[in-house]
This record gives sequence, C-alpha cells and structure tokens, in this order.
Amino acid sequence: MDAEAAYRRKTPRSARLFALSERLHAGGVSHNIRFFEPYPFVARSASGSRIRDVDGNSYADYWMGHWSLALGHSPPRVRAALRAQAGRGWMHGTCSEPAIRLSEALSRAVPAAEKTRYTASGTEAVAYAVRLARAATGRRRIAKVEGGWHGYGPGLVSSVNWPFGEPEGAGMEAEGRAVSVPYNDSEGSLRKLERAGKLACVVVEPLLGGGGGVPAEPDYLRSLEEFCRKSGALLVVDEIVTGFRLRYGCAYERAGLSPDLVTLGKIAGGGMPMGAVCGSDEIMGLADARAAPREKRAYVGGGTFSANPASMTAGLETLAGLRGKHAGMNELGRRARKDLASVFSGAAEVTGAGSLFMVHFGAAGPVRSAADAAGCDLGAQRRYHFGMIAEDGIFCLPGKMGAFSAAHGARDAARLKAASEKFACSLRK
Amino acid sequence: MDAEAAYRRKTPRSARLFALSERLHAGGVSHNIRFFEPYPFVARSASGSRIRDVDGNSYADYWMGHWSLALGHSPPRVRAALRAQAGRGWMHGTCSEPAIRLSEALSRAVPAAEKTRYTASGTEAVAYAVRLARAATGRRRIAKVEGGWHGYGPGLVSSVNWPFGEPEGAGMEAEGRAVSVPYNDSEGSLRKLERAGKLACVVVEPLLGGGGGVPAEPDYLRSLEEFCRKSGALLVVDEIVTGFRLRYGCAYERAGLSPDLVTLGKIAGGGMPMGAVCGSDEIMGLADARAAPREKRAYVGGGTFSANPASMTAGLETLAGLRGKHAGMNELGRRARKDLASVFSGAAEVTGAGSLFMVHFGAAGPVRSAADAAGCDLGAQRRYHFGMIAEDGIFCLPGKMGAFSAAHGARDAARLKAASEKFACSLRK
Repeated sequence: MDAEAAYRRKTPRSARLFALSERLHAGGVSHNIRFFEPYPFVARSASGSRIRDVDGNSYADYWMGHWSLALGHSPPRVRAALRAQAGRGWMHGTCSEPAIRLSEALSRAVPAAEKTRYTASGTEAVAYAVRLARAATGRRRIAKVEGGWHGYGPGLVSSVNWPFGEPEGAGMEAEGRAVSVPYNDSEGSLRKLERAGKLACVVVEPLLGGGGGVPAEPDYLRSLEEFCRKSGALLVVDEIVTGFRLRYGCAYERAGLSPDLVTLGKIAGGGMPMGAVCGSDEIMGLADARAAPREKRAYVGGGTFSANPASMTAGLETLAGLRGKHAGMNELGRRARKDLASVFSGAAEVTGAGSLFMVHFGAAGPVRSAADAAGCDLGAQRRYHFGMIAEDGIFCLPGKMGAFSAAHGARDAARLKAASEKFACSLRK
Repeated sequence: MDAEAAYRRKTPRSARLFALSERLHAGGVSHNIRFFEPYPFVARSASGSRIRDVDGNSYADYWMGHWSLALGHSPPRVRAALRAQAGRGWMHGTCSEPAIRLSEALSRAVPAAEKTRYTASGTEAVAYAVRLARAATGRRRIAKVEGGWHGYGPGLVSSVNWPFGEPEGAGMEAEGRAVSVPYNDSEGSLRKLERAGKLACVVVEPLLGGGGGVPAEPDYLRSLEEFCRKSGALLVVDEIVTGFRLRYGCAYERAGLSPDLVTLGKIAGGGMPMGAVCGSDEIMGLADARAAPREKRAYVGGGTFSANPASMTAGLETLAGLRGKHAGMNELGRRARKDLASVFSGAAEVTGAGSLFMVHFGAAGPVRSAADAAGCDLGAQRRYHFGMIAEDGIFCLPGKMGAFSAAHGARDAARLKAASEKFACSLRK
C-alpha cells in the first residue's frame, strides 16, 4: 500500500523505538486506542497546533492529547505557570491554593458545581460520581447509553464498543450492572429505563466523545432528566470531553438541564492529569468524612495526586486563557464540518459540534448514535486518517474524532480540506 | 489547648483560605486524610525538605507528598527536566519516548516488570492488576490483608480502617468481594485463604503504608506466595509506597518473592500523577487489544493521562537521581527509629523500615499489624503530630507515617528528636 510505504519511509526511528516499546508494553502502548497499523509514530515534542515525531516529521494535530488541549500544545501562558509552579513544588500532598482557586473558577462557570472533588483521572471522577449516586439513593443499578465512554471504572465498561450486547473483556468487576439505553432515542431509552427497576443514576455525555462525535439532541437529554426526576435516580452528566470545549462552562446548560452530578477533566486540567466530580452541597457532602457517619458516607477519596498544584495550575491558567477563544475555535469547527460534508457529499456523514468534527464513510443515513457510527465503513475512516498521517502531515488518531484548538488557524483548516479532497478523489476511482 | 492556640495564631491566612475551601470542597479537601483539626494549613510552596504555608511558616516535611518525593520537593534535576518537558508539551496523547525510557529503567530494576502499563494513579494500577488477575485465572474473588491500602478501587476498599469487619462506606461496588486476612499471621491467613475457595489473587504490601508503617515479615510474605502457587491464585505485590523507597528497585526481592504482578507509583513517577502495573509478558499480554480476543482480553486501558511525558520524565529523572541515595536516607530512618524508641521508651512502639518511621503510643506490645496499630492511643499520636506542626515547625500529617528524603539531613533528624523529647516530657507530667 502506497500510504504505508510512504509512512515507513519517513518514520524509521519511530519504527525502531516502537519495536522497543512493544517489548516493554502490552500492545506497545499504555492506552489501546493509541495503536494503529503498522505502528504509531513516537512523538518527540509538540507546540501550538503541531506535534513532531522522533524522525523530525511535523503534523497538524487534531487529536490534541485526547482532545484535552483547547489552547493547543504547550501554550505560553500555561507553560510559564507550570514552570513557575515547578519551582514551588508539584506535589504538596496537602491543601494548597491552586485547587481552591480552580474550584472557585469551576463553581462560577458551572452552576451544578457547588462543590468539587478532584481525582487523578476522568475514570476516577465518573467512578466516584457513581459511588456518590449509590450512596445518595441507596440503590445499586446504574444506566448509561450505548457507546458512551466513561473510562475504565466498574460497571461503566459495558456497551462501549459494537456489538454493544457482548462483554468488553474478561475479569470485569460488577459487569452487567449498567443498563444500556439507545442514544438519541427517547422512546427506546425510556422503555428500557422503566423496565430496569430502581436506578441510582443515569450517566450520559452531551456528545459521544469516543462513540463517534455524536451530539445528544436536547430533547433526548431532557427526557432522561425527566425520567430521573420522576424515578428518584440521579442525573450524572459526563462533561469530561465537552466541558470548556464547546463554550466556557458546560454543555448541559444549553439543553436546559439541572444535573445532580457533573464530571470534568481534560481541558479543565489543562491537559495535566486531573478529573473532577462536581455537585450540590448536599450530595457532595456524602464525601465529607467528618459529617457523614461511616455507614452513610461515600468513600470518595481522590488519591495521592488529587488536587496536586501542577494540574490545578494548568487548569486554572487554561480556563483563564480560554476566555473569548470559543467563538474562533467553534467557527473553525463549523466551517470544517461544512467543508468536509461538501467534499465527501454522498460518500460520508459528518458529525461533531463546536470545534469537534468526525467523518463517517458509507453511512446509511444521518449518524445519530454510536450504533449508526459503528455501522459505517470503519476501514475507509482509518485509511482516510492514516493517509493524512502518512502523506499530508495531518494527525487525526485513526478512528477518532478531531478537534480544533485555539492554536489552529484558517491555514490548518484549508490543509485539512485539501487532504480530504485528495482522499475523496481516491474514493471515486 | 495551647498547641491549637499557637497554631491559630500563626496561620490566620490559612484559616481564611480553608474556610473558602470548605465552601468549595466536601470536608474542605480532595483527600479525606488531608484534613486535621482545627484546619490544615494551606501550602504555598515546597523545596527540598521544607514546605511553606500561605502565612510564611516553614515546616520540615515528613509527609513528603504522600511519601512520593524521595528526593525531596522540587529537586533541581527533576525540576529542570520538567521545565524542559513543558516546552516540548506535557500531553502528547500518543506514544512518546519518555515512557519507553522509564519502562526500560523499571524493567532493569524490577525483575517482575517484563512489561508495564501506565495509569494516572495507584488506585487505577491496583484495580487493573486485579482485573488482569481475574482475566488470567477466570476467577472472581480476591484477598487482601487487614489494613492494607490499595486505593479506592472496587473490592479493595474493605478492611482498610478499624474495625475491619464493618463496611467502609455506602454505595460501594462489589463490596465484600475481597477476603481479608490477618497481617503477619501466616497461620490465621492460610486458614482464611483456604476456606475462601478459588481466588484470582492475593494483594499485599511489603509494608503497610496507610496501615501504620508495619513491615511484612519475610516468612509471612513467603507463606502467601506459597499459598498462591499451590492454589493457582496470582500474587500481586503492591509496591506503590515501597518501590524505590527502601532500595533502588522493589522490596519484594528482599523477601525472595516472585510476584506475578507488581504495582508502582509515587516515587516511580517522581511525585507526578502516575501508576504502573507491571508483570510478565504472558499476563500483561492479556491487556494487548491486538493479541487477545475480546472475550479473553483484560480491558486495561490506562486513560487519557497514561504515560504522559511530564509524569514519565519526572519518574525517569527521579530514578536517575536516586542512584546511591538510599544508604543515606535509610540511615536517617534507622537512627530516627532508634532515637524515637529511646525517647518514648515504655510509652510508645516505633515501626517503619528504611527511611520510613511511625510512633504508636500506648501499644500493648510490638506493633505487627494494622490491628495492633489501630489499638494504640491514636489521640496521643495526633497530639504529638499536631503539636510539632503548631510549635516545632515539623510536618508529619497527623496519624500518618513519616518519611525522610534525600533532601533531609542530620539537623532535621536532631530537630525531630528534640521535638519528640518535648512531647515525651509532657506525657510524663
């Protein structure tokens, strides 16, 4: 294959390093999705909209650190703050001011975030949200949507990958506990939710991140919230991808929701390791070891790295730097979705929102769910993404949604369009 | 109380900031153990062996970021590397070289670590180790020791705090799944393990970190390993506290163990957010999404922040900086344990190993388990620790084990001894 030959030719040092990486890491990686055939390039540095590999190749980056870098790589403001914090220590292990200041900023921007508890990752944040919901309701079962990705926590690693009904793997804790409901299908979801018995919570993303860049329809989200209100379940909105991505604040507000718990991460930590579970004084109070008696409290602890001053500083400076930046990023996204829809007219559907975009080849119709996305031509999608890595200096992680950052500009968008036109031509041959 | 009055007098700005923190965080903190009465000071900066609060008070720090900073706070070598990495980006989101180099170093220092998978925290690392053990054995139940602390993962948050038989909190997943066995009691442990049926794994720390700084007796560890070998369970040694703390490498080697899986974190990540699960090619291969079919593989993913170049760089430079440093740190620890045992002779037992130490007041005899530690006078321990914070400029997190770092020296040890003598006098009054 031409693209593969071109890729191998320009990445010999990556090939050697990845061979070493395969000896040292299962699958060569520390996150399954980072592998792509024949081998992923090995990054050396990244700055602004660009990532460079160990062979000196430079790519316009639309993966952007799992979409965690809304200001681009190593933005000067955040970089300077991190360097200064390194001089004051990155691990105080006790209360320190950056966490207090970040929580103030979150509390102002996210109405549901009366109180926040920090974790080291989004996986932990959602796992703790579920634990809080179980403690608050005294119920066990939870529900999620098909294709929803909420990290590796127990009960939530189900119906992530197509086919949704089959186990995701062996050795899973509490597997089968999450009831899965069809995304953007209120009637189908309510039917399953009502049959499910008493639920502790329903967990939903306002836009399926890992599941294909598919926005939730506001009416769908409201129907889930209405079910929660009526049935006594809590609504957990997972904004780890969408928080501070689509606007300064959370996406749930646009749909008029009032979630009980909200999870944040990625952008809110400036791309440094961080997750956050946010909620009302009352529900978050269950995590207060002083107030709640042992048998009532939710054992939600954060961990060694919770609220570490380096991640907190990166989050705080990123939020400050993001003020006024969403209009431009979202306009790049809007135009890219429009351009790509026109370039691939008839051959693909384009999803996304704000600065996010994703192309689905061979769709039978509009892509409104992870099931729709999984039914598309995933081989073509990977060839499209890999071809751009190999030949066009553009990095969309194969199979994953793309994101503009504030460091991207109209020239990046034009190059993405041109590379896509080339791929569209190859499809017509 | 005098100490409290002295503390309040010198920390007015901490008091105000902590009041704000209580409004924004459950219990005012993001980790329960960071709270102490009347309020914890708010840290502003830390360097070497010292941590400074927002009121300008300086403390000799023996908490050392949950014992994660073996070189002290912000050691120049690690700080410089982190600052340089900040210029190359802290979140590549794809393969990058620092992770490969760190895994090489781990693999050389830790025989069990043929392959490594990185996570954002120790909690995640142990949860994934359990998932791997379940996938490898096809069994569900696991065992841990009483007072063992392995993070907030499901099944492991049981028998952490005294009384061990009672639930740790509400809303827990898969609660009761872990069989708890008495620490340093081979006979008692084997009796319970043999009754427990087929186990996926036994998880044990070579030294109870959160459980009172109590080293495992080598014979005890070997009896657990022997049980595992005979019964087909995997041995998971949690070295998140002990790895690279007691020596360059892991503590399990000293006991002549051959664990199936080892977890690392804290020092191995240089105090930056990081966990690692390490094991043989065969077992870790279950995490390889390419090799294992979906129903056999362990869904062990790491996450967005896994192997991020900032944490990897901090780990790599910390390991390099630690070469040759253990003898000095361990000698400070050995002398402190001896001095404290003599200062508190008759009034307290001293535990610990290497650079770690802990004083247990009113012990009925040698402290050989978390149960022994929990039976001591915890009020006296807290008064001792708090008194040193309030009056002596020494920070041991109340109720927790202390740690020397390579940045501590003989003067620190002398001040700790002098402050302890003062407390010993007050006990005699």
